[in-house]
Amino acid sequence: MTDRQSFAMDFGPANSPDGFRVELGGDKPLRLDSEAELGPFSMAYQTYGTLNDEKSNAILVCHALTGDQFVLGPHPVSGKSGWWEHMVGPGKTLDTERYFVICANVLGGCMGTVGPQEINPKTNHSYGLDFPVITIKDMVEAQAMLLDYLEIDQLFSVIGGSMGGMQALQWAVSHPKRCFTAIPIAAAARHSAQNIAFHEVGRQAIMADPEWTEGGYLAGDSFPVRGLAVARMAGHITYLSEAALHRKFGRALQDRSEVSYGFDADFQVESYLRHQGMSFVERFDANSYLYITRAMDYFDLPAEHGGVLANAFKGVETRFCLISFTSDWLYPTSESRDMVRALNAVAANVSFVEIESDKGHDAFLLDEPKMFETLGGFLTGAAKLRGLESE
Amino acid sequence: MTDRQSFAMDFGPANSPDGFRVELGGDKPLRLDSEAELGPFSMAYQTYGTLNDEKSNAILVCHALTGDQFVLGPHPVSGKSGWWEHMVGPGKTLDTERYFVICANVLGGCMGTVGPQEINPKTNHSYGLDFPVITIKDMVEAQAMLLDYLEIDQLFSVIGGSMGGMQALQWAVSHPKRCFTAIPIAAAARHSAQNIAFHEVGRQAIMADPEWTEGGYLAGDSFPVRGLAVARMAGHITYLSEAALHRKFGRALQDRSEVSYGFDADFQVESYLRHQGMSFVERFDANSYLYITRAMDYFDLPAEHGGVLANAFKGVETRFCLISFTSDWLYPTSESRDMVRALNAVAANVSFVEIESDKGHDAFLLDEPKMFETLGGFLTGAAKLRGLESE
Repeated sequence: MTDRQSFAMDFGPANSPDGFRVELGGDKPLRLDSEAELGPFSMAYQTYGTLNDEKSNAILVCHALTGDQFVLGPHPVSGKSGWWEHMVGPGKTLDTERYFVICANVLGGCMGTVGPQEINPKTNHSYGLDFPVITIKDMVEAQAMLLDYLEIDQLFSVIGGSMGGMQALQWAVSHPKRCFTAIPIAAAARHSAQNIAFHEVGRQAIMADPEWTEGGYLAGDSFPVRGLAVARMAGHITYLSEAALHRKFGRALQDRSEVSYGFDADFQVESYLRHQGMSFVERFDANSYLYITRAMDYFDLPAEHGGVLANAFKGVETRFCLISFTSDWLYPTSESRDMVRALNAVAANVSFVEIESDKGHDAFLLDEPKMFETLGGFLTGAAKLRGLESE
Repeated sequence: MTDRQSFAMDFGPANSPDGFRVELGGDKPLRLDSEAELGPFSMAYQTYGTLNDEKSNAILVCHALTGDQFVLGPHPVSGKSGWWEHMVGPGKTLDTERYFVICANVLGGCMGTVGPQEINPKTNHSYGLDFPVITIKDMVEAQAMLLDYLEIDQLFSVIGGSMGGMQALQWAVSHPKRCFTAIPIAAAARHSAQNIAFHEVGRQAIMADPEWTEGGYLAGDSFPVRGLAVARMAGHITYLSEAALHRKFGRALQDRSEVSYGFDADFQVESYLRHQGMSFVERFDANSYLYITRAMDYFDLPAEHGGVLANAFKGVETRFCLISFTSDWLYPTSESRDMVRALNAVAANVSFVEIESDKGHDAFLLDEPKMFETLGGFLTGAAKLRGLESE
C-alpha cells in the first residue's frame, strides 16, 4: 500500500474521531443478490445527535458513489468539511438537535465498511477482485443489519442524493414498514444507458492502468493513480451542468494571459479537473470505484418487479418526498417523474418538487435554499404525524 | 510501429485509390498561430466529381476531429464506407455530378497530411511532441495553400460539421472572398468549458498510458492503445444523445439473459463502447488526437475579434447556411443562434435551421432528410446566383 492510504482509521466502540465500526453477519451471513455470502463483515458509520427513548427519531443518510459516512467534518483523511454540512447539523434541515442522524459507509466502500480493500479472512490478503459484486439492495440489507444491531425498528426517514437516493428508494421497497418517510433526491429507479456508458469509461480508465494489476495492486506497492484520476475527471463533468462550468470557468486561462500552444492546463477548467482527479485518489480506492459503479449500473427497480415500477410500491405506507433539479442531466427530472407516476399509480403518499438550479446533479450537495425549505416543510409535517413534537 | 499501422498509403499524382498527396510550403513556409513555421509539408486529399472550366463549382468539405479525407469509401485502412456517403455522391445533396468536392486531411492529422506521426525532416524521426501545436486557423491556411496549388480562387462552398463547421466558419472569416457560401453544421464560434473538459479527459487518458512514452511511442514498439480507446469512449458518449443511447441500447444485455455479477460487458452499451474504442485505435494516431482536440479547445472567434463575434464578419459577402440539431448537447442550438445573431448584426446573408432529431451531435453524419432538404434548397439557390446552371 502506498503512502496515499497510510492514514490509520481509529475506529472504536466509543464515538472516537473516526466514528464507529461494528462487525455484522457473524451469526448469519448476508446473502447477496449474486448468491455469494458475506459475513462476518465490518461496517463503519457515524452518528450525529441523540436517539430518543422511543427510538423514533432516527434518520438514515445514504451517501453517493464517492461519498462516505462523514456527513460532517473534519474528514479524517482529507481534513475537509463533511459532504452534507449544508443539510445536517444543529438547526439545519436535518436538525441534529431533533433527529438522530446515522450514516454508514456503503458495502463495497473504502472507509471502514467491508469492500475490496479490506482483508479477506479466508486468505488474509485484501479481497481485490475476489470481493463479490454487490448491488444497491445488498447495500440496503447491510444497513438493515446495522439498524438491527442498533435496535432501531423504524427509521423516521431514509434520505440520500444520487446513489443515496437509489438506496432510499430501495429501502422503501425492501422494508416499507421500517421507513416512515423516504426522500430520494436527484435519483432514478434505474440507471440509464448513458449513465452506464459514463461508468464504463471510468472503469476502463482504471483497468487500463498497468498499476491496477487486475485489481491486485494492494498486495504490491502500486496504485492505479492515473486511471482512477481519469475516471474521476470524466465523472466530475457529469455532476456539473454546462451552465455551471461556463459560469465558474468559461474559457478563462489558468495563471497566464495567453494560451501556451502546448498541453499544459492552459484553461482553468482543465486545472480544476486535474485537481479533482488527483485529490480523489488520495481518499478513494480504485477497486471500490469499480464495485460501486457496477452496483449503480445494476440498479433497475422496474425490471425486478415485472417491468412495472408501480408494482415495487404496492401497499407501501411510507411517505415520499422526491426532489430533482432542472439542470441535472445525469438524473433528469423525467426520472423523478417516472417514480412519482408509479407512486401515484398505487395511491402512495408522495410529494415532488423540481428545483430550479443551474448547478447540475451536484446541486443536492450544495446550498440550495429551495431544497432545504421543501424538505423542512415535509419533515415538520411528518414529525407531527410521527409524534415527534418539539421538546 | 505496431501492426495496427502497417497499412501502406499509396498516394500518387494520379487519382490512386488512396488519393492525392502534395507538398506545400516549399517556397514559403506556413507561419502558424504559435509563430512556428511549417514547410515544406505534405497534404493528402481526395476529390470527387469534376472541376468545371471556370473553376467555380468547387466545394471544400472539412472533416471533424476523428474524420479524414475519405468522404466516400472504401476507407483504405478500415475498408468501411466513407464518413459522409449520405451527403456526397452522384445525385446526393453535394452532387458530384455537379460539384467538384475536395476534402483534405487536416493539419495535425494522421492520414497523409503532416502531423505528429509524420517524419520531421530535421531529425528524420516522427515529430511526436516536437510537432507544433496548431489551430483551426492554421488548418484553414494550409487548405488555402492547397487551393492555391489547385488554382481555385473561390470555393462555391465550404462545408463541415462539428470541427468541420469551425473550419467553414474560419474560412469565411479569414478568406471571405474565397467563399461564395459557407455551411457550418452542428458547430460553434468557440469551444465551451464543458467541451474543453471532455477533451481534457481524453488527453489525460492518453497521457496516462505508459505506452504513450511522452509522445515518443512511434520511435519504439509501443502505442497507447488503451489510453486512446478510453479517450474515444468518453468522446463517443458526447456525440450521442441520451435518447439515442436509450433507443439503441437501453439496458439490454449483451449475449446473456442475466447480469454476470462481474466486470464483463454485461450491457450492450458497454460492448458497443468498447468496440468503438478498439476499432478507433486501428486507424487513428494518439498524438494526433491530442493536437486536434487542442486546436478545437483554442478555437474562439469572438476573443480574436475584441470579444464581439459580429466583428469577425464585418463586410463579409459570403452567404451562410447554419444547421443545428435539437438533441445535440455538445454544440447546442444556442451556439448556432449566437452565430446567427452575430451575422445578423452585420447584415450578412444567413439562413438557419434547427433540425428536430434525437440522434445527438452525430446527426450531421447520418441520414437526416431535413438536413439534406435544407441544404439542397440553399445550394440550388446559391448555384443559380453563381451561374452554375444545370448542364
